[in-house]
Amino acid sequence: MRLLLTHIHELYQTETVHRRTRVAGAEMAEMPKLHNAWLLIENGLIHSFGDMASMPEMHADETIDACGRLVLPAWCDSHTHLVFAAPREQEFEYRIKGMSYEEIARKGGGILNSARRLNETSEEALYDSAYERLLEVMAQGTGAIEIKSGYGLTTESELKMLRVIRKLKENAPVPVKASFLAAHAYPLEYKNDHEAYIKLIIEEMLPRVAGEGLADYMDAFCEEGFFSVADTDRLLEAGWKHGLKPKIHANQLHYSGGVQVGVKHNAVSVDHLECVGEAEIECLRNSNTIPTLLPGAAFFLGIQYQPARKIIDAGLPVCLATDYNPGTCPSGNVPLLLTMACTQLKMTPEEAVHAVTLNGAAAMELQNELGTIAVGKKANLILTKKMNSLAYIPYDFGNNPVHKMILNGVLY
Amino acid sequence: MRLLLTHIHELYQTETVHRRTRVAGAEMAEMPKLHNAWLLIENGLIHSFGDMASMPEMHADETIDACGRLVLPAWCDSHTHLVFAAPREQEFEYRIKGMSYEEIARKGGGILNSARRLNETSEEALYDSAYERLLEVMAQGTGAIEIKSGYGLTTESELKMLRVIRKLKENAPVPVKASFLAAHAYPLEYKNDHEAYIKLIIEEMLPRVAGEGLADYMDAFCEEGFFSVADTDRLLEAGWKHGLKPKIHANQLHYSGGVQVGVKHNAVSVDHLECVGEAEIECLRNSNTIPTLLPGAAFFLGIQYQPARKIIDAGLPVCLATDYNPGTCPSGNVPLLLTMACTQLKMTPEEAVHAVTLNGAAAMELQNELGTIAVGKKANLILTKKMNSLAYIPYDFGNNPVHKMILNGVLY
Ligand SMILES: [Zn+2]
Ligand SMILES: [Zn+2]
Repeated sequence: MRLLLTHIHELYQTETVHRRTRVAGAEMAEMPKLHNAWLLIENGLIHSFGDMASMPEMHADETIDACGRLVLPAWCDSHTHLVFAAPREQEFEYRIKGMSYEEIARKGGGILNSARRLNETSEEALYDSAYERLLEVMAQGTGAIEIKSGYGLTTESELKMLRVIRKLKENAPVPVKASFLAAHAYPLEYKNDHEAYIKLIIEEMLPRVAGEGLADYMDAFCEEGFFSVADTDRLLEAGWKHGLKPKIHANQLHYSGGVQVGVKHNAVSVDHLECVGEAEIECLRNSNTIPTLLPGAAFFLGIQYQPARKIIDAGLPVCLATDYNPGTCPSGNVPLLLTMACTQLKMTPEEAVHAVTLNGAAAMELQNELGTIAVGKKANLILTKKMNSLAYIPYDFGNNPVHKMILNGVLY
Repeated sequence: MRLLLTHIHELYQTETVHRRTRVAGAEMAEMPKLHNAWLLIENGLIHSFGDMASMPEMHADETIDACGRLVLPAWCDSHTHLVFAAPREQEFEYRIKGMSYEEIARKGGGILNSARRLNETSEEALYDSAYERLLEVMAQGTGAIEIKSGYGLTTESELKMLRVIRKLKENAPVPVKASFLAAHAYPLEYKNDHEAYIKLIIEEMLPRVAGEGLADYMDAFCEEGFFSVADTDRLLEAGWKHGLKPKIHANQLHYSGGVQVGVKHNAVSVDHLECVGEAEIECLRNSNTIPTLLPGAAFFLGIQYQPARKIIDAGLPVCLATDYNPGTCPSGNVPLLLTMACTQLKMTPEEAVHAVTLNGAAAMELQNELGTIAVGKKANLILTKKMNSLAYIPYDFGNNPVHKMILNGVLY
């Protein structure tokens, strides 16, 4: 099966000789591209591409005239909580009315609300609603996604969530990665015995999760009032023992040491990072860990945004992800995330797109198969509506830039 | 033609006896509604509505089961610059890269960029692109819209823009209001002779605009560096002489006296209002002028938001509008505007919806035909996707809440 795109107005993120595994610092602002290009897809992979001026004669089963349109790698959304039982718009209203986190928790809100609802919901119903959300974000350009557990908080419910994610992995036309996040919050019954819950995770949950091959990554919410640096240290070490690399929540509310403990354990990424100072930057500089920013949550909560410029200007890579979740960011809309990155984090359109393509792929260890236009990579691509340049995507906010998605070489 | 909606999960903004013309202060947080309701539309108007429990027998040509869905008045977007020649994503990029307004202007950016492009574009092309944008925002729930001139800045081009708006008025299934905004910026050739441009507006443009019945309102960009309070005073007085009520841009960048000069001339609304102090609030309190906030532009520019709470808590009405325009807010997406109002301006979902329905209608003097669910009003309504409550609309950001639009009683 050969699909040919011709007369592509701009083909972004092309790589010919040198294959990058991530892009950092000043490099992020420069995006390789071809003007008036063609691209051939064969059996779901990028077969070849080049200038229209020198397009060879070739056979294709289907040819698409992409005149006036852009083609770019599909978004790689490396941090989501896509599997959940119910939206939480009631809490959203409480928060606007000035209710504190504690009051909302007393009214049955917060992560424990999601956990209660998830416990009451069948695996099938969870799968169906998550699949619907996945289709929704795919229509907005997402071509690979990471999904976390963490609304179970009991052994059986965490396994249930991870089985739902496995089923998504098996059935979705996009790569899915699973992170095990039992260390998301302390369940009520462990309120006064955190040690017992950590033991439950390490001694009971982890062996079963790893034994059934249900997770790719070990996650923890490292934050004052949640899981301390010492807790996280033990959790990540236990994860490694079961072959799970870390990928953690860090430094959302405090300079907590979360970045440092992530880097210590060679985390694939440390995510959130509202609070990043010199110490965090120095630590990241000497690591392979990718800093991942989640501006959607900052927007939705009305709190400070992440210091993207400081991180990029220090020569580091930046990854962006949606954090799609029912409490603090009920949206998996990557085009809108790009607008926030540009208008609030002051990233350029090229930096922002790098952050959700190659760097998003890298934050899921998919950089060898996704994230750029390179021969042999998976053909998960966005064919945009008619537009002049990349900048139009974040500029035209509130509208979907996608004309058609190409996933595994198939048009959607 | 009778269209019946049954089993409506929640029918919002119902009015039975008392018809409000606007809603202000604490009232904004309380939205009348019916649970499990029916609504009958006849010949494009709301004929009757009530509880399912007591629905009378009746004949309808078409019946829709609205089980699990909300019905509410369509959005009334009272401030847009929907007619323009081309997007300006290049400037957006320049601004992110730190270029000043002056540098961008030197590179051919700003309002004068739009004016140059508009002058080169035919009336037909302007109409086609504006109609496409109108269809786009109607699909997101907009059921009435105000559109400004102001990218012409010459007599012929201002008339051209206003003729495009008139053609939209004639052909669109939603009410359209036109504002004459030649006082948007000083054209280059009048850079050193502002007085001559004001004379051109008052003595040449206004008589022709009014003579051809092309505008409903007189607008001006009252701001330091643009049109001064004294200029605005003269412009609004001249507008009144030709029967055009004022509706102006005020207090976006400074405590400029714009609110006061608007109120002095009994403006229908004063719009923008990033800068609102005690003096502005006192002035508005003794007037019929509606304060209209445009948070989309503040978001897109990354500047401070409008003090909605201060205005509502002072007992005043607040209206929200998109400011859809190619320079500072290239989006007419009202659902996203509602999310910004809730998360950034700390308005409750009910306040925000009041602000774009009844108060939006009032800011276009359409409060007697739109903005609430009342017998005899025009049936321009939103039938939402399945959801539990109004709060879900701003909560579920980046997604379109609209299942079907009903315009003049017809399903779209
Ligand atoms: Zn998260
Ligand atoms: Zn405006």
